[in-house]
Amino acid sequence: MKIYILKNNLKKALNIVEKVVSKSLTLPILNNVLLSTEKHCLKLSVTDLEIGINYWTLAKVEKQGSTAIPVKFLTNFINSIPDSKISLEVKDTILYIEGKNYKTKIKTFNPEEFPIIPKIKEEHIIELDNLIFSQGLSQVVENASISHIRPEISGVYISFQKDVITMAATDSFRLAEKKIFSKQIFKSENKKEYSIIIPQKTVRELINILPNQKGKIKIYFSSNQVMFECLSEGSGNPEFQIISRLIEGKYPDYQDIIPKKHKTQLILSRQEFINQIKTASLFSGRVNKIKFKIFPEQGKIELLAQDSEIGESSSFFKGKIKGEEIEVFFNWRFLLDGLLGIESEEVIFELNKKQEPAILKPVGNNTFLYVVMPVSSE
Amino acid sequence: MKIYILKNNLKKALNIVEKVVSKSLTLPILNNVLLSTEKHCLKLSVTDLEIGINYWTLAKVEKQGSTAIPVKFLTNFINSIPDSKISLEVKDTILYIEGKNYKTKIKTFNPEEFPIIPKIKEEHIIELDNLIFSQGLSQVVENASISHIRPEISGVYISFQKDVITMAATDSFRLAEKKIFSKQIFKSENKKEYSIIIPQKTVRELINILPNQKGKIKIYFSSNQVMFECLSEGSGNPEFQIISRLIEGKYPDYQDIIPKKHKTQLILSRQEFINQIKTASLFSGRVNKIKFKIFPEQGKIELLAQDSEIGESSSFFKGKIKGEEIEVFFNWRFLLDGLLGIESEEVIFELNKKQEPAILKPVGNNTFLYVVMPVSSE
Repeated sequence: MKIYILKNNLKKALNIVEKVVSKSLTLPILNNVLLSTEKHCLKLSVTDLEIGINYWTLAKVEKQGSTAIPVKFLTNFINSIPDSKISLEVKDTILYIEGKNYKTKIKTFNPEEFPIIPKIKEEHIIELDNLIFSQGLSQVVENASISHIRPEISGVYISFQKDVITMAATDSFRLAEKKIFSKQIFKSENKKEYSIIIPQKTVRELINILPNQKGKIKIYFSSNQVMFECLSEGSGNPEFQIISRLIEGKYPDYQDIIPKKHKTQLILSRQEFINQIKTASLFSGRVNKIKFKIFPEQGKIELLAQDSEIGESSSFFKGKIKGEEIEVFFNWRFLLDGLLGIESEEVIFELNKKQEPAILKPVGNNTFLYVVMPVSSE
Repeated sequence: MKIYILKNNLKKALNIVEKVVSKSLTLPILNNVLLSTEKHCLKLSVTDLEIGINYWTLAKVEKQGSTAIPVKFLTNFINSIPDSKISLEVKDTILYIEGKNYKTKIKTFNPEEFPIIPKIKEEHIIELDNLIFSQGLSQVVENASISHIRPEISGVYISFQKDVITMAATDSFRLAEKKIFSKQIFKSENKKEYSIIIPQKTVRELINILPNQKGKIKIYFSSNQVMFECLSEGSGNPEFQIISRLIEGKYPDYQDIIPKKHKTQLILSRQEFINQIKTASLFSGRVNKIKFKIFPEQGKIELLAQDSEIGESSSFFKGKIKGEEIEVFFNWRFLLDGLLGIESEEVIFELNKKQEPAILKPVGNNTFLYVVMPVSSE
């Protein structure tokens, strides 16, 4: 293999793929990036056996070939050099990297030991706006369960229908749901509804890797695998692919727990609500419990917290309130997570009786909602 | 005790003193800040029994008194509230903090359990520019030894003479020395030379706490204690005091190891030198060894590094070089530490024969120097 490449192209590619690689002591080959030439591109591949990533970047290929190099080392090295153009050449088991003022020899691993990243059978293809998709995933992904007792809720659920894509995640204490409607969906299946459950780690990697500029993402999936692909602008060649296994099992019918009515509705400044919760949280002790008293007539909310070791606090803030006077307890962490997933300046907070779920949602946007269970007053 | 105080005054004071407090499980009282009224001020005191800090901030005192409160908790709480003015009142063992829209009750500790921060016998007093002092300490402090085998080099050495103050630190592999000359010394002892060794932790705290605006610092010391005091601008009342024990023992006569001559002198761009070292360091293996080959006639330096597991690198860069051709090995970490302590754009690097110390110093400033030992070529 011999190629010439712009340092910044290689740097960008390495800094994206190296995040997937976690140090493997049992299989050292997994600490490597597989470099291989493909037409006018250098292809970088990494895998942890659950997720695989292929990433393409332009290069002048003088001699085809491939090699495997410890990815953290190569990333640090490429990040540290000043040159703008470099050459990479493999002779025997040594990679020679040369720039204007330096030469390096780096020991390589045998590229044939690198695990094959499986190809996916293209059963279903969806195409949609990558920014909307990435933002939607960010709003739900951290609500997935960290427990492995119920693997089906440890991932992000995505349901594909002709005119709407629904993403959801829950850990049974709270649930976040985001919908993407047809104008951001460029291609979908005409037939019945399909749904998949994607491991949380895959979703996090996908959010990391998705470009910040507007573009399209293609999703290919079969019954046990999914592939996300972005095409590079102009050329139509792929820029990257993420291939992952899917989680088996049936996602719970969570629609049933989303309350359709409410007893009291609050419209609050999101930032003030966050600040109030953070202050009260200092007095909430190990159980994270804070208490709301809602006074619709005065348009004010009292927030109380108490901890036998520290002391107690009481604070008042204002909001637009409709409905009944109510007292209810929440775990402040769950409320805060929900508020951090919302971007609007004002939020709607709909409460029901004790032990019945409440809803948080943005003002002026019907694509996101967050359901949260109150905690017992005991 | 009852006071009214501007939230931002209390916030600033807490954020400074809380850094000294490390969680003590054996003596919970040490996790507290002692709040006490003193004329028109609130005084905050913390101690870890080695270092004590007193910090004064303005308050409207309605009733004199004192209390002790967990400092991390109080800092988090005061940082989180929106109010600009608050009241603090102690009744029985409860501290009541009230603002416009909230009330809190916080359990207190008995202020009488708080250890007394000792007063210092004022044997010697020095007064100097606080910015120059703080910057000088920063340049040397990280070179003190972390080993406790030779406690006398685990601190920062300061020698006071009539017209010059010298600060130094070494771990026997490298040494940094900074001098402050008479125009920045406002008051000094007329008599013979005095010297003290201050624990590294005290110096770090002092650097943290010293204000960023121009002012004066007073240093009081006796044979086993030191106190640093800054006066608040205008009033002449103290703003803070740091009291610390001193390290006993005799500091080594390090002047002898500072080389008076050199074989080869390099003048280099500091930033390029740092970048070159960082790149070579990736190939330096566990021994951190890099090799310099100096070519005075071509005005260039070759930097080499080699690691049996990774590979090897060679890079060239330019400099103004006087003297002989030379080959020498260094531990790159020590070189980098020295360069990070220098602020000038260009640095002077003076080399001698193998096994003889080299010097790094800024161009255009004779107040700082850094001595570093080469490592063996084996």
